[in-house]
Amino acid sequence: MNLTYAVVGTGGIGGYYGGCLAKAGHPVHFLLHSDYEYVLQNGLKIDSVRGDFHLKTVSAYKDSHDMPKCDVVLVCMKTTNNAMLKDILPPILHENSVVVLVQNGLNIEYELSQALPDTTIAGATAFICTTKVGPGHIHHAEYGALTIAPYCGDSGKVLKQVAEDFISAGVSVTYADDLNSVRWKKLVWNIPYNGLTVVLNAATNELTFNPSTRKLVIDIMNEVVTAGRVCGASISDTFVDKMIAMTEKMTPYSPSMKLDYDARRPMEIRTMYSNPIQVARAAGFEMKKTEVIEQQLLFLAEHKV
Amino acid sequence: MNLTYAVVGTGGIGGYYGGCLAKAGHPVHFLLHSDYEYVLQNGLKIDSVRGDFHLKTVSAYKDSHDMPKCDVVLVCMKTTNNAMLKDILPPILHENSVVVLVQNGLNIEYELSQALPDTTIAGATAFICTTKVGPGHIHHAEYGALTIAPYCGDSGKVLKQVAEDFISAGVSVTYADDLNSVRWKKLVWNIPYNGLTVVLNAATNELTFNPSTRKLVIDIMNEVVTAGRVCGASISDTFVDKMIAMTEKMTPYSPSMKLDYDARRPMEIRTMYSNPIQVARAAGFEMKKTEVIEQQLLFLAEHKV
Repeated sequence: MNLTYAVVGTGGIGGYYGGCLAKAGHPVHFLLHSDYEYVLQNGLKIDSVRGDFHLKTVSAYKDSHDMPKCDVVLVCMKTTNNAMLKDILPPILHENSVVVLVQNGLNIEYELSQALPDTTIAGATAFICTTKVGPGHIHHAEYGALTIAPYCGDSGKVLKQVAEDFISAGVSVTYADDLNSVRWKKLVWNIPYNGLTVVLNAATNELTFNPSTRKLVIDIMNEVVTAGRVCGASISDTFVDKMIAMTEKMTPYSPSMKLDYDARRPMEIRTMYSNPIQVARAAGFEMKKTEVIEQQLLFLAEHKV
Repeated sequence: MNLTYAVVGTGGIGGYYGGCLAKAGHPVHFLLHSDYEYVLQNGLKIDSVRGDFHLKTVSAYKDSHDMPKCDVVLVCMKTTNNAMLKDILPPILHENSVVVLVQNGLNIEYELSQALPDTTIAGATAFICTTKVGPGHIHHAEYGALTIAPYCGDSGKVLKQVAEDFISAGVSVTYADDLNSVRWKKLVWNIPYNGLTVVLNAATNELTFNPSTRKLVIDIMNEVVTAGRVCGASISDTFVDKMIAMTEKMTPYSPSMKLDYDARRPMEIRTMYSNPIQVARAAGFEMKKTEVIEQQLLFLAEHKV
């Protein structure tokens, strides 16, 4: 099965993963916004710990109406723009297309399924440090593994082929059955580190090695684990310890929300904080510490220094 | 009964209240630190909404060993220096002296009673906006009422005279029986506003009028009310609403912890956050939201921008 790919949102995530697939010979069509002209002229340049490469010719578009229908649509933009998906996606979807949300947060697949019923949807989390450092220029600093899981519709066969394609492109992929657990496990790291790096203007290592914020990070992680379990996610008892040990070994790092805040872009507060808080509350659990961070972020979003 | 007064810590609080007593003719001996030479030469200048005044000659000391023993010792320094009280106070205490802690936080009278057993101790809260703006120069911007309550030892008669002396000096005073309730009620305002103005680099009005932080402030106030009640404090159901309405009417204001942080002075985190959290925990209640703020402040205390 030779799959055709669309990448919606060609930033750090989309540029890197789409670039890897294109470099491995797969047909990848990139939807771009501000970088369209530049990438059309100059292609995509990926500086990666796995080896730098330059795609001199890229199938680039600035409007999804000009794109071909694709078998797999990798949605890699920030969830702050997800309301646009109901307009962006239909022109590039055929009957059996699978939309994979390579994004952060919770309930995003549900929201898309409400906006575009009958669409086959999957979700993916990216464990990666990658940033767009200039037009068509991606810097991939560390890691890179994807976890992919189905949400709705019949996507099993296609997703397995997607996994094979990524593996052939040098990307480590895990296929999971339970997207809810995948999403909550990602939140265990994302909720403390994304918000606290913004609120305290600090990098991951500072938060991890200062005894007060280390305790705060762990307390919040445990709150997210409890919330996730109340919402049916399966998370092991050692998961928080693993996340802390992993972060201790990471190169000091600014998570995506910190980069967004510093660049005065919208932050993913709704999908990463408000949605989990509401889903947990509906299941009977109050994420009290997470709420503090959510409200602080909502304030800071309107009072940028 | 003609009381003699000592003021330990001649900043915004000590300079204003001690200055009012001295202006009204009461004998007041001021212990000073960095401003000693200046105040000895120039006296105390108080710019007050109630009318400016200048005490040209002040009974100023730089060492409590040189001071006379006084009937009433008003401790007006920051609680971050309270460990020094066991050395500062003994030279100025006679058998019937009453030490009044005009300070913020919880458990501070208990800590002093452990350090100096058999001392007669009372506590007071000051509802006032006053700041030291220069050496021997106090700016009193708003309010000024004191609430005084006994802690241990036989202080009733003296405290009632203290109240009369303050009233004769134009300061509004309430005598309360239950110091525990007085302390917790003060914390209902102090815990959200002191910490959040630091963490979010914002003034009281910004926090009160932004819908997200208004909710956060109210949530934290309700948490403090619950904690206080669990610890035996008597706080009315309408108290949080009153505090918000009062803050809405206040001139935009930086609480003492924000001034301390901006001036790179130590913050009163232990007495204002850690002590209430521990006391509430011992009584069976977890102050989860307050803990987030505490841990953020402890981080910021070590990572000043």
